[in-house]
Amino acid sequence: MTLSPGPVPLYHQLEQDLRERINAREFKAGEALPTEERICGEYGVSRITVRRALETLIAEGLITKRRGVGTFVTPPPESGVRSVRLSGSLDEFLASAGALATKVLSMQEIQAPDEAVRGLRLAPGEACTRLDLLSFLEDAPLGYHNLYLPLAIGRKIKPVDVGQKLPVIRMVEGKAGARVVRAEQFLEADIAGPIASKYLNLQENTPVLKVTRIYYDMTGAPVEMIVARNHPERYRYSIDFVAKPRIV
Amino acid sequence: MTLSPGPVPLYHQLEQDLRERINAREFKAGEALPTEERICGEYGVSRITVRRALETLIAEGLITKRRGVGTFVTPPPESGVRSVRLSGSLDEFLASAGALATKVLSMQEIQAPDEAVRGLRLAPGEACTRLDLLSFLEDAPLGYHNLYLPLAIGRKIKPVDVGQKLPVIRMVEGKAGARVVRAEQFLEADIAGPIASKYLNLQENTPVLKVTRIYYDMTGAPVEMIVARNHPERYRYSIDFVAKPRIV
Repeated sequence: MTLSPGPVPLYHQLEQDLRERINAREFKAGEALPTEERICGEYGVSRITVRRALETLIAEGLITKRRGVGTFVTPPPESGVRSVRLSGSLDEFLASAGALATKVLSMQEIQAPDEAVRGLRLAPGEACTRLDLLSFLEDAPLGYHNLYLPLAIGRKIKPVDVGQKLPVIRMVEGKAGARVVRAEQFLEADIAGPIASKYLNLQENTPVLKVTRIYYDMTGAPVEMIVARNHPERYRYSIDFVAKPRIV
Repeated sequence: MTLSPGPVPLYHQLEQDLRERINAREFKAGEALPTEERICGEYGVSRITVRRALETLIAEGLITKRRGVGTFVTPPPESGVRSVRLSGSLDEFLASAGALATKVLSMQEIQAPDEAVRGLRLAPGEACTRLDLLSFLEDAPLGYHNLYLPLAIGRKIKPVDVGQKLPVIRMVEGKAGARVVRAEQFLEADIAGPIASKYLNLQENTPVLKVTRIYYDMTGAPVEMIVARNHPERYRYSIDFVAKPRIV
């Protein structure tokens, strides 16, 4: 296919065409996309154009870049599982998240637990940095957070960097020299458990909302993973759905 | 203030001005807005213009219309509570929600329980219609739902109307002759409890995600409230946050 000069920018035409080819399963889930060079040749466009198109598809989560390996079509969700997937603006989310008062409980390098291996795409047994945090709202404990960082990023951060009136990820971006373009957030129910219950003054078996959020950079690599358990009476999670206005 | 003819439609100018007056607390939380007639007079615009401006503010949740009483400024969230509030498209949500296989377990007129009194804004002791539903995914039970309807709407619906390859609220809209313009959804952690655990084949104390969703019509009146408890292994709730692209 050749792209045509005109009002629609080339990178946008390319992005649309690649999206269609992925949706038509010409490139299948889990498989690699052609290299940037091949895409340049096939469409007769520059490397910059190809990169811009791929960046958009990465930001949408349709493809994933593995550094030094290639770009792969993101596999679809498992069968037998209902996935309710919403989308939102990261900038607005972080602006509204604002800066809670945060206390660092501990910071250490550990062998990554399973959830961090999966979330940060580490090798089994690989080490990572773990920060345990407690957030406060009007002096009352609000959330108990486990924050995981790849070791290379964790080593650039000190406990004193946390809680400087900035969402933690913004501080991490600065220290790591990364730019976060996307985050995935999962919501589950859990019990408070022995540790969070202590910090949040709850019974161990109190149901709490467990929020897992993974931030990704422009290459699709995970930069930070945070697992939060929140106080059920001080944390509300709501979504407003608005219908498209109809002209009256 | 007088509105000026020009490229920005009058209803949009009016909507902006009312929003600013609410945000400036000239109209305070819980207080009534001036009547439509007074707003017409004050701004020198038609009733249609006023209604369109108010509709947008109602859809945003900034004001609430109580039929036959007036329009009120929605109170802000309580203090000491962290409200994470996202927004999304109702049309897209319902399209993705699609039609799960649904079985009606029971339908009855009952004295509204507390959550329905609050959600549907009923008088204490007032009756409502309650439908208990079980949804399935690939023949496995996915969610146990309590659906509450104002009596006037519930009486237009029969159990056989449910589960006709249409999200339940779309069927309710049709039967009630209402148009849903907004929904509010709350997410909490809960335990499955004695009833949902039976239908979902879980232990009673298994933590489950409890999703409460209230649908509102154009006047801001609640049309349906649904409380769902979902199977933790078959129901994933995720949100993709995407950063505004920067020009490279």
